[in-house]
Amino acid sequence: MRNYKISIIKGDGIGPEIVDEAIKVLNAAAKKCNFELNYKEYLMGGIAIDTTGVPLPQETVDGVLNSDACLFGAIGGEKWDTLPRELRPETGLLKFREEMGVYANLRPAIIYDELVNASTLKPEVITGVDIMIVRELIGGIYFGKPRENDGFKAFNTMVYTKPEIVRIGKTAFELAMKRDKRVCSVDKANVLEVSQLWRDTMNELSKDYPEVTLSHMYVDNAAMQLVRNPKQFDVIVTGNIFGDILSDTASMVVGSIGLLPSASTGDKTAIYEPIHGSAPDIAGMGIANPLATIVSAAMMLRYSLNEEKAADLIEESIKSVLKDGYRTKDLAAYDAKEVLNTSAMGDVIVKYV
Amino acid sequence: MRNYKISIIKGDGIGPEIVDEAIKVLNAAAKKCNFELNYKEYLMGGIAIDTTGVPLPQETVDGVLNSDACLFGAIGGEKWDTLPRELRPETGLLKFREEMGVYANLRPAIIYDELVNASTLKPEVITGVDIMIVRELIGGIYFGKPRENDGFKAFNTMVYTKPEIVRIGKTAFELAMKRDKRVCSVDKANVLEVSQLWRDTMNELSKDYPEVTLSHMYVDNAAMQLVRNPKQFDVIVTGNIFGDILSDTASMVVGSIGLLPSASTGDKTAIYEPIHGSAPDIAGMGIANPLATIVSAAMMLRYSLNEEKAADLIEESIKSVLKDGYRTKDLAAYDAKEVLNTSAMGDVIVKYV
Ligand SMILES: CC(C)[C@H](C(=O)O)[C@@H](O)C(=O)O
Ligand SMILES: CC(C)[C@H](C(=O)O)[C@@H](O)C(=O)O
Repeated sequence: MRNYKISIIKGDGIGPEIVDEAIKVLNAAAKKCNFELNYKEYLMGGIAIDTTGVPLPQETVDGVLNSDACLFGAIGGEKWDTLPRELRPETGLLKFREEMGVYANLRPAIIYDELVNASTLKPEVITGVDIMIVRELIGGIYFGKPRENDGFKAFNTMVYTKPEIVRIGKTAFELAMKRDKRVCSVDKANVLEVSQLWRDTMNELSKDYPEVTLSHMYVDNAAMQLVRNPKQFDVIVTGNIFGDILSDTASMVVGSIGLLPSASTGDKTAIYEPIHGSAPDIAGMGIANPLATIVSAAMMLRYSLNEEKAADLIEESIKSVLKDGYRTKDLAAYDAKEVLNTSAMGDVIVKYV
Repeated sequence: MRNYKISIIKGDGIGPEIVDEAIKVLNAAAKKCNFELNYKEYLMGGIAIDTTGVPLPQETVDGVLNSDACLFGAIGGEKWDTLPRELRPETGLLKFREEMGVYANLRPAIIYDELVNASTLKPEVITGVDIMIVRELIGGIYFGKPRENDGFKAFNTMVYTKPEIVRIGKTAFELAMKRDKRVCSVDKANVLEVSQLWRDTMNELSKDYPEVTLSHMYVDNAAMQLVRNPKQFDVIVTGNIFGDILSDTASMVVGSIGLLPSASTGDKTAIYEPIHGSAPDIAGMGIANPLATIVSAAMMLRYSLNEEKAADLIEESIKSVLKDGYRTKDLAAYDAKEVLNTSAMGDVIVKYV
């Protein structure tokens, strides 16, 4: 029987609850499709600080690198926000991304027909939106050196080298080949040298993908266009901090924030996680929406394990569950027939699978 | 009679057409309120390149510094996009901002009731939105050094010093005192040292403004919240590039992009301009919307010349003109009774003034 090693990081806040539901659903799909998943749990974020004193224990790094893929919940919370920078959950997350070498963060922004009213944008503007945002994840100003804060003057460095741009560009072009064959590269080349190199490199790279249409957009305009006419985009590729901002904008544009997954991939391993945060304010109340994590688990099956059929099964089940009017509390306002708690939502998806 | 020196920069694309209409309206208001405006025209951007060989002639710098305020159209166009960086219109604009010392860029995002349907957001989400975005304009990554692109590696520096943060912070707090007394400072302090200094400095400064409530938001979340619930904001204060992105998002959220003005102020002079660009594709066709420039002219009367009454007069006239159904082509879809060309729109506002 096909057999996979999955590392699990539940994290903080609602992390544990939502990951538990995803595991339930993964197990059901694995059984149905005749493969086996072996989970091993690792610590990261606030819970790792509380348990081991550091946000990213070495055991987690080694364990995840040694697995076929990692399913991740969410980390962070006010409790740890006042710790020195090197001990904060976010610092652990950034170090984790770097150590895993996951340079490409894929954030699909799609519409679920049943939830079209959950967006603050008009239905006619967003119906049919299907954007893939490809964000560079382990470079740019997040990791650039020198960086310093002496209390009077502080600075960070936004830096990219050509190989870094080429590899994320390739990811974007390859994805576009399987989609609508359009890549929009977002930068601020009218002001920044680093963006000029980004743009020149994308132009060069595009010669290897004659079927794909490459366009360029300044980041301020891209932020506008996502609100004005999100349907114009197929694949968007951009640097770390621009991608951070634009992917959050896009998730709000489509309104399905509780359903959007993400994949962080590289040459060594891949991490799958919901795009939403750890929501400490509702942790433990049984009202968290596990769907984004379950969709992330489906993405993991498809991209890291090549278990297409199982992935389809989960995605179809989610669509049916939504069509049949099952909702978690956050979505109760959108044509709910029955409002379920976190665990009951997991159960009903298992049933459909 | 009160007498003011106004420097005029028409710029490229639709710049000349829209500035001409604003001058018409300014003259009408001045006559009505018994003061005199003396205009002197200066070159900048593409037209300056074509005429003098550089995007920002020294004469423009000296002339504007020597005036009471500057009314500015828009610059740039594809024609000049392939020039070396130091000769591009944008480079002239950035140098201009720096030379003028205009560190505070104020971008109000407000709703005109008549145009509520022009937004892609639902009317109930945006009705009543009234945000003042205060963007730092002559620091941060736009001007930070070192900056370099050697064709293999490229970088820019995002840098702020405490005095730079204090002075823009003061602008925001002072504005908030005249508004709803809430300042939201936007940064990325969970990742960037420069943002940590920004946040710490805002916290310190807020002690001088006990009546104002200061909150902090990460830039990715702010981009989301502008789409999710723009009404939550009063004054937003942020750095140069975050402000570039967020103010464009906000203008699209309220949908009145053709009507939004901006003011760039500092200790030496102030520049007033529409937030939209030079739109070379429609230049000379007589369909450009002059309203944002006319509102900018009203802002100039209010903030630089203290001619409150004249400013009110213009703003009231614009509201009446919109209420009475006069529209330019870009707004023809929103309850138009009569669609006017650029110059006829200027004329009708003059009539109302
Ligand atoms: C928590 C934070 C460091 C992180 C980021 O900025 O990358 C988050 O916003 C994200 O997008 O995953
Ligand atoms: C043209 C460009 C350099 C400029 C900027 O980024 O500041 C523009 O986008 C703006 O916001 O005024």
